[in-house]
Amino acid sequence: MAKSINLNADIAESWGAYSIGNDAALVKIIRSASVACGFHAGDPTVMHRFVTLAKEAGCSVGAHPAFNDLWGFGRRRITMRPSDLEYMVAYQIGALQAISAYAGLKVTHLKPHGALNNMAAEDLEYALAIGRAIKAVDRNIVYVALPGTQMETAARKLELPLAREGFADRQYDDSGNLASRSIPGTVLKDPAKAVEQVLRMVGDGEIVSRNGKTLKVQIETICVHGDEPTAVDVASAVRKGLEGAGVQVLPLDQMKLAG
Amino acid sequence: MAKSINLNADIAESWGAYSIGNDAALVKIIRSASVACGFHAGDPTVMHRFVTLAKEAGCSVGAHPAFNDLWGFGRRRITMRPSDLEYMVAYQIGALQAISAYAGLKVTHLKPHGALNNMAAEDLEYALAIGRAIKAVDRNIVYVALPGTQMETAARKLELPLAREGFADRQYDDSGNLASRSIPGTVLKDPAKAVEQVLRMVGDGEIVSRNGKTLKVQIETICVHGDEPTAVDVASAVRKGLEGAGVQVLPLDQMKLAG
Amino acid sequence: MAKSINLNADIAESWGAYSIGNDAALVKIIRSASVACGFHAGDPTVMHRFVTLAKEAGCSVGAHPAFNDLWGFGRRRITMRPSDLEYMVAYQIGALQAISAYAGLKVTHLKPHGALNNMAAEDLEYALAIGRAIKAVDRNIVYVALPGTQMETAARKLELPLAREGFADRQYDDSGNLASRSIPGTVLKDPAKAVEQVLRMVGDGEIVSRNGKTLKVQIETICVHGDEPTAVDVASAVRKGLEGAGVQVLPLDQMKLAG
Amino acid sequence: MAKSINLNADIAESWGAYSIGNDAALVKIIRSASVACGFHAGDPTVMHRFVTLAKEAGCSVGAHPAFNDLWGFGRRRITMRPSDLEYMVAYQIGALQAISAYAGLKVTHLKPHGALNNMAAEDLEYALAIGRAIKAVDRNIVYVALPGTQMETAARKLELPLAREGFADRQYDDSGNLASRSIPGTVLKDPAKAVEQVLRMVGDGEIVSRNGKTLKVQIETICVHGDEPTAVDVASAVRKGLEGAGVQVLPLDQMKLAG
Repeated sequence: MAKSINLNADIAESWGAYSIGNDAALVKIIRSASVACGFHAGDPTVMHRFVTLAKEAGCSVGAHPAFNDLWGFGRRRITMRPSDLEYMVAYQIGALQAISAYAGLKVTHLKPHGALNNMAAEDLEYALAIGRAIKAVDRNIVYVALPGTQMETAARKLELPLAREGFADRQYDDSGNLASRSIPGTVLKDPAKAVEQVLRMVGDGEIVSRNGKTLKVQIETICVHGDEPTAVDVASAVRKGLEGAGVQVLPLDQMKLAG
Repeated sequence: MAKSINLNADIAESWGAYSIGNDAALVKIIRSASVACGFHAGDPTVMHRFVTLAKEAGCSVGAHPAFNDLWGFGRRRITMRPSDLEYMVAYQIGALQAISAYAGLKVTHLKPHGALNNMAAEDLEYALAIGRAIKAVDRNIVYVALPGTQMETAARKLELPLAREGFADRQYDDSGNLASRSIPGTVLKDPAKAVEQVLRMVGDGEIVSRNGKTLKVQIETICVHGDEPTAVDVASAVRKGLEGAGVQVLPLDQMKLAG
Repeated sequence: MAKSINLNADIAESWGAYSIGNDAALVKIIRSASVACGFHAGDPTVMHRFVTLAKEAGCSVGAHPAFNDLWGFGRRRITMRPSDLEYMVAYQIGALQAISAYAGLKVTHLKPHGALNNMAAEDLEYALAIGRAIKAVDRNIVYVALPGTQMETAARKLELPLAREGFADRQYDDSGNLASRSIPGTVLKDPAKAVEQVLRMVGDGEIVSRNGKTLKVQIETICVHGDEPTAVDVASAVRKGLEGAGVQVLPLDQMKLAG
Repeated sequence: MAKSINLNADIAESWGAYSIGNDAALVKIIRSASVACGFHAGDPTVMHRFVTLAKEAGCSVGAHPAFNDLWGFGRRRITMRPSDLEYMVAYQIGALQAISAYAGLKVTHLKPHGALNNMAAEDLEYALAIGRAIKAVDRNIVYVALPGTQMETAARKLELPLAREGFADRQYDDSGNLASRSIPGTVLKDPAKAVEQVLRMVGDGEIVSRNGKTLKVQIETICVHGDEPTAVDVASAVRKGLEGAGVQVLPLDQMKLAG
């Protein structure tokens, strides 16, 4: 068993009059939060409310930048010039840094959201653009990346701190990518199944794909999705499962990282 | 004659495919730039392009936050909760700080844009909300304020550095406020008239209103508007006029300030 | 007792990944729906889903135009040129007409949303701009207006069909305006209180303000707010209460109207 | 020589404070206008101003729907559900219909903008979604399509009136698609070259690709791009060239069409 792991969630995805997720409960279970920065979700008031909660809960804060696509909740793929993407990501990091200052917190990691995450996993130009934004704004920010993807390549190339991420609540395909949300059953809503997948990942360094294939994997952080109604139950079970197995669950900035 | 004054302009107000203003020429004439932060104008790429120019020209950089109103170019009054306004302003400051990091520049002043500036001048709640945002993010940022308004009151109350602003290219009404743009003739497009107004302000501490009333005023910074086609000519004439009169034209962060 | 009345709700206010209200339940209770048109809430897919439900339920469809202010959910006052407002309202009507064509429905009324409704009640320029938009697009569209306000004046002046609206779930102040949502208790969440207020309005032509003052009023339509969690219970109780008192509850396009 | 042809341009692409193109000059030269509908450009006021000009000039009006991407000016590819796309397009048609009512004009054609046009040319699902939107709103609206693409297939399948479009001011690649704007020289800014390309298309039914390959083509409408600074000169030369060669230049709704 790895002696320590981080538990993170995408969070603060409410916007204006619209509520989503259960930030107040989740912040107490996870140890690191990937905070929506206003482009796919999250507004300055939502962000402010969340960093206050994060401070109280001892939860570290990271940026969760996305395409400028509120309507699509950042889940639509958008083709853009890598330089535009880079500055757009830097902009979002800075916005969160300013809001985090209210709680005396620093932004210590970055994890791209939704379609941007998917595209950066496949496309080195996108992955590097995100990495360059980190480097320009604060080179100590940890680049959270899907292991074995162009994001890991980009983080290493740019010599950025790297945390490889596994998912508690999503099935994998045989190539180690997340199976599409549009396939029924790929979102794990049963806490027991999520715990099983996480312990296998953290304990054995293995993922079993939805077709039953065993994949080797090394991860430093586990994600639960904050926008699922089952998020709190899943996260809570995962944390208990990990601690029950003797694994310390730490904020990302206290983890020993790759990269 | 005052021995020194700052010359500023609102700038970087292009957006996406849309171009406005002549940033490249203006940046060499002014000494401080109030940079649009993406809410009324300006996008991350436009902001990035500008801070690079500012670095080369030795022009200091400030935030020019606005209501979230691209369509209205930030010129429509919007009523909102002061706390929402505060975090929205902090968000914009942070976004610009991150982009400015590319050029190794700090954000050293803040000047609200358009309708937000007008409302903050009249409404202490708005003026304080803006000031609290500055204080939370970086209390060394200079609050650029219309003299004698609630903005000056707020800056003093919050003990923030303060620069009082006079306008080169806009007429004043008898109460010392800017006369509305919708009144013909209130935008000074003739460089000679702008120079005359500026020298009177800087030299004699006086403004002559559009009705001929003389008002006492103390200012540390002169604004020319970047989005007028006449901006470059007006700014250039004003700078020459000031230097010809023996006044040093300095970046805002090198000025001795009130507050 | 008036022999007939309309029952309406603001509806289809979800947007992208964000859900609000219970359209599917509410559409069966009300007889006319004021459909968000994408500017404060509602997106083309949400609108389409709703008009399909409305067709099935025999619920008439109206436009619920708003300021372009998704973040503020259309509840922030915005000052704009009346001509801009007019075309912005026409745009929203047309958008809904096109989506309604999918269900073979016509847009038969218009009711401004939130801050636009409040401002149009007070400001004849705004009220007329909205009315001119109706007139340009389809002069048979019923202008739903707060009785005794500039909206009623505008509808009469432009000779548009007019329906005066009373609220089931909101308290009134002594001048006959809605008491501000920010005052605790002004949103009636208890179905019994809403029924009582409605029967008094419809039966006696009277409103009792929150301070106990009795106001004379004539109304053709009753509104329940779709975005309150209590909306379905309140609407259901109001409809039963009305029908129990022998009042027919009709779609707005089947009502005999003023104007 | 074909006895008649239509000349169209993308137009009304200003937005808020931002100006682009020369609508007032162009509207007198072209015979049909593809009007931005607010999603990539164009706002209700800009649309209104344009339809007034179109009425005066005897220019027919069509919808120019786009992805909801003002920042990217509709030039960024976005992946979305075809049903979302369909209703989004219907929404834009309806919005323009309402604004056109001010000038007593009907919307008589539709041409997708930018990246949406490119994607619909390749992807039948997108092309059909656009076609279904037309069919739902007004089945007499002409679907303007790149010849030989999935758009032509979709228009025929849905039995919609079809106009195949050739470009005056853009080079083609060997497969008959537009060569990418990012390749230098692919935008024809020299009126003489544009006239030559158009006369070859209209007169001989042929396009010569940028590599010199001759392609057979049948077209009913010629496009000049409204957002190029050379648009007016190019359009003017093309119209004169056509009329000089004895070709009648007609509004799209007066053309004899395929489909």
